[in-house]
Parts: sequence; C-alpha cells; structure tokens
Amino acid sequence: MKKKLSDHCLSEEFIIDKFFKKLNYNKLGTFNFENDGAYLNLSKKYQTVVTTDTITENVDFFSKDPPESIAQKILCVNLSDLSAMGSLPKAYTLNISINSYIDFNWLKKFTNKLSRLQKKYNIYCLGGDFSKSKEISITSTFFGQAKSKNILPQNKCQVDDDIWVTGNLGDSYIGYKLCKSFDNKIDKKNILSFKKKYLYPTPCMFGYMAAKYINSAKDISDGFFGDLKKILNKKYGAKINLKSIPLSNNLKKILLDSQSKIYLKDILCWGDDYELIFTSKKKYKVKLLSLAKKNNIKLSNIGSVIMQRGVFDDSALLIKNISSYDHFR
Amino acid sequence: MKKKLSDHCLSEEFIIDKFFKKLNYNKLGTFNFENDGAYLNLSKKYQTVVTTDTITENVDFFSKDPPESIAQKILCVNLSDLSAMGSLPKAYTLNISINSYIDFNWLKKFTNKLSRLQKKYNIYCLGGDFSKSKEISITSTFFGQAKSKNILPQNKCQVDDDIWVTGNLGDSYIGYKLCKSFDNKIDKKNILSFKKKYLYPTPCMFGYMAAKYINSAKDISDGFFGDLKKILNKKYGAKINLKSIPLSNNLKKILLDSQSKIYLKDILCWGDDYELIFTSKKKYKVKLLSLAKKNNIKLSNIGSVIMQRGVFDDSALLIKNISSYDHFR
Repeated sequence: MKKKLSDHCLSEEFIIDKFFKKLNYNKLGTFNFENDGAYLNLSKKYQTVVTTDTITENVDFFSKDPPESIAQKILCVNLSDLSAMGSLPKAYTLNISINSYIDFNWLKKFTNKLSRLQKKYNIYCLGGDFSKSKEISITSTFFGQAKSKNILPQNKCQVDDDIWVTGNLGDSYIGYKLCKSFDNKIDKKNILSFKKKYLYPTPCMFGYMAAKYINSAKDISDGFFGDLKKILNKKYGAKINLKSIPLSNNLKKILLDSQSKIYLKDILCWGDDYELIFTSKKKYKVKLLSLAKKNNIKLSNIGSVIMQRGVFDDSALLIKNISSYDHFR
Repeated sequence: MKKKLSDHCLSEEFIIDKFFKKLNYNKLGTFNFENDGAYLNLSKKYQTVVTTDTITENVDFFSKDPPESIAQKILCVNLSDLSAMGSLPKAYTLNISINSYIDFNWLKKFTNKLSRLQKKYNIYCLGGDFSKSKEISITSTFFGQAKSKNILPQNKCQVDDDIWVTGNLGDSYIGYKLCKSFDNKIDKKNILSFKKKYLYPTPCMFGYMAAKYINSAKDISDGFFGDLKKILNKKYGAKINLKSIPLSNNLKKILLDSQSKIYLKDILCWGDDYELIFTSKKKYKVKLLSLAKKNNIKLSNIGSVIMQRGVFDDSALLIKNISSYDHFR
C-alpha cells in the first residue's frame, strides 16, 4: 500500500527538508528555504524579466499523469514565456497546492525531475509556498535576464515582416487526444512519441539567442492561429503558406488518412506546442536561418505580415473561424 | 439574478481589459498586460526581495467571504513577509484560479479593493495569469527593495536579544471563531471589530523602517509560539513575560470571562495576526521605541533570547505543548 502524506501527518518543514531543499543549490538569496522570502542575486547589467503561470489538475493535466510530466509542464510553460521575451532564465519560485492523495513517491519523482530540468536550463529554485487544496494546482514565477533593448514585445510586428515558427506543430494535439483515448490506427511506437510530446513539452529557447533580429514574439501555447492573432494585434494581417507549416512526418501521415478525422485547422487552433512564433525584418532571413542551424533548431518561414487585417492562405483566401484556447471558457 | 461569468462566455481578454488593466498604472515593464511576461523596473541600488504566497478557498478563506476580504488577505500575507525581510514593497504578480460562481460584481469588488490597497502601499501589479479551478485559489508573488545589509533573516537571533512584538495579538483568532459561529456573549459592536481583524488583516510595515536595528524577524502568520520557535531556530530558547504579550482590551475581557473557553495559549498558537516578531540587541531599545512611536506603531518588549532551549514564562517554567499552524496537516 502506498504511504500517503496524510497517513504520516508529515509537517511542511519535513517535506521541504526532504524533497525541496535540494533545489536551491545553496544559492545566495535563498536562505536555504529557511526564510519566508528570498532575494534575487542577478547581474545588475540586465533587466529582470518576470513571468508567471499556474497549471491546474483537470485543466492542464490529469490527476494520474506522471509527476515528472507535471514538473516538466510547470517549468516549460514559464521557460517558453521567458524565451518569447528574449530572456535567459535564471531562477523561479514554486507554489504548490496538493491534496492528500499525493504520496512520498510522487514528491520524490516530482522534485527529482525539477532537479534534472534545473541542470538542463541552468536555473535554481528561489523559494515557494506549500498549501492544501482539493485539486493539485501549481504556480511558478520565473525570473530571467535580458538587455533592455532585447526584451521582446508580443505585439510590435511590422508590415512585410517574415513570420517564423520553430520546431513542429501539432504533435502535442495528437498526444492529448491519445491520452484522452481516441479511435486510431497509429502504431504503438508512434503513439508513445505523440503522448510524450503532450506529457513532456519542451520549450524552444531560441528567443534569447535571436532577440536582436526579432520584432515580435510569442510562444505557441494557445494555438498557432490564436497566438498569430495576438502578434498581429488587431492592426495587421498575415499571409500564411499553409504548406510550410512545420509538421512531423508522423503527423503528416495522419492528416493524409481521411478516416483519421484529424484536420490541420483543429491542430492550428490547439495550444501546448511551446514552439515560438515570431516576426522579423526580411533582411535578417539568412542570419536567422544560420543561427538556428548552429543551435540545431528547426526554423520555418511560414508567411509574412500584411497591411490588410485577417489571416489569408497562399491563394489569398481568408481563413475563417480561427480561434485560440481561452483559459477561462 | 446574478450574472455569472460563465453565462456570458466572457473571454480572458475581456476580463483583463475590464477589471485588471487598471492595476498596472501604465508602468514601464508591464506592457499594459499585453505580453505573457513583464520586466521589473526597480532601482539598481537595491537588492530585489521576492516572496510568494497562495491562499485557497476553504483553507485561508470561505467561499462566501467578501471579495474585498480575499483581496486584502492575498496582499497582506505577502506584504507582511516583505516587511519581515526588512524590505519596501514595489510590485506584485497575481495568479487567479476562479470557478464559474464568480460573477462580474465579484471581480469588480475584488479589483477595486486591490486598487485601493495599491495606493495605500504604493505598489503596482506587474502581470499575472488566469485559470479555472473548482476552488478559488490565488497566488501572489511580491517584489520589494532593500539594501543588502538590511535584508533580514528569520533565524539569526543572538543570546540576550530583546524580543519584540508589534500591535496586538489574538483578535483575528476571535474573529475567525466568530465567522465560524461560536457561542459567546460578546456585544455586537465588538463582534464586528473582531471579525474585521480576521477578514481584513493589516500587515505591519515596521520591518523596513527598523531593519538596521533588527537581528531576526518574522511575521506572525503561523502563531506566536510557532513563529517564535522559528526565530530561535532550535539553537536558543526564550524567556517570555506572558503579561506583556500585547492584547486588545476587548480580548482581555473575553480572557477574564471563565465561561468563554478562550485561553491565551490557544490564541498564541493560532496564526493570522500579521504583526511582526523580531529580536534586537538591548542597546537599541530606546531607538526602537522612539521609531515606533514616531510611526504610530504599538511595540512591546515581551522577553529575551536565552541560551537554554525551550520557551519559559517569567517564573522560569517551561511552556509545554506549543505548536504552530502547519499548512500541510
């Protein structure tokens, strides 16, 4: 039988000592998690960029998802926002509300995964807060550094800018549908690969590297079309070459199967890709492509910003009924 | 009938525009809440102090509590932590998870209260995040400024330090019991005053003013005894003059009534006072008292730090079975 935390009547202090203290790397300012606050010990040469996101059980993850997946999601959603701001991540705080079903093993797996991701992204945990709730809810606030002139806005694209997308879109959508179970003919190996894309999203950290060439950037978290519309800011439109939208070969196969009932438009209205969409002056095309290649990042030029409002395909037809994921609906 | 948000199918964008944008004061770095991130535009002369807290329905407040009370609680718990760190508050982020019972009126009252408190404490909202959940849960991360040498640790008291407490303790405990309804003979006017102490806690912002005279400080959020023990850090003990524990006259009356079943020890194990407890070298006694008087803050010297571990009363008797509020039990 699993040992639940509530069976042990464990104190907050014990949980922090046993599972969370390893995440502070003894960094100055964390007070080894023995203070109610902390201080950020970042370089004064840069601005401190802040972003914050909450993920909630039954909305952003299922209660039976692996704790490693939940750990990766809470870091990914924030790292991805920092990247879209042109910023290098440095530290984060963590507010965890957990219910009594969480056990020792869950906390161990969750914090071990955080620890591995901290090493990968060179970040540390600054502090946080513990509370009880009926549903698991996790908030993280992230701190990054960027030079003032390189902090990227979301809605300052210019007419004639190229529109770029990193990585592939849509695999996470299939992964989500597979986790919810949907009728399909996808082979086992590919099922795992799609599910992994949904359960273990990986932020694209290209924003900091390419910031000086970018006018406007956003991470694709609320759907390609929705995030594109945010970049266009009700001021401009876009001409999109739908054929150049980057998709994995596995996804292409599914789209070609008329029985799959998976359509490109659904994919592009769904979020959770955590790739970047950004716009840049045409003159930076070669520089961007070479920078992406050097960093082993797939980069696709998928269209350009136009004066006329609306999103058009390459035959100049208006693409209708495009929506984005709304956290409140 | 109340208009619920879910009836309207309102978008996140609409809610942010209508209720939250007023909180950013058009400050540089907030991007008028049109970016997924923001940047902190604080003076480079100081360290950036960070603290974060979550409050949850049915744990930290009741679902029918006034939205103004919930707004005051989420700011108070964080402001109080910043004060205990010797820091001046500057800005904060807000992550709100709300359920479908929240209506227009709720959001209006909640954000109007935040706006009034922002003016009082000279702070602004840097950004945040919206999500859905079964229970209301609100996280806020606060940013303050302090000189490096004035950032206060919780657990660096010294033997012979005076132990100080601001304001009065325990009114919030009675207020909580009254909100939960308990048999009492308290007159109506006083009932309201006690409930107000629980529903509208006010942080004591003395920490920043007095930082240079303080060795160790904590806000009293988990109970006087529990927070005192955190300051003593399992290294030292304390001699406490129980008669000098600051209590309101209304509370003293209740304690004297043998039928009230309210005991001093229960009060001192309960949290939510949001006053400060701190230790300071004896030589600063006069300076501290004069600083407090100048700022109209009640300050009581309630004992001193001793070498022998344990908490003793003024008859040198060990005070037993003292616990603090644990967020996880």
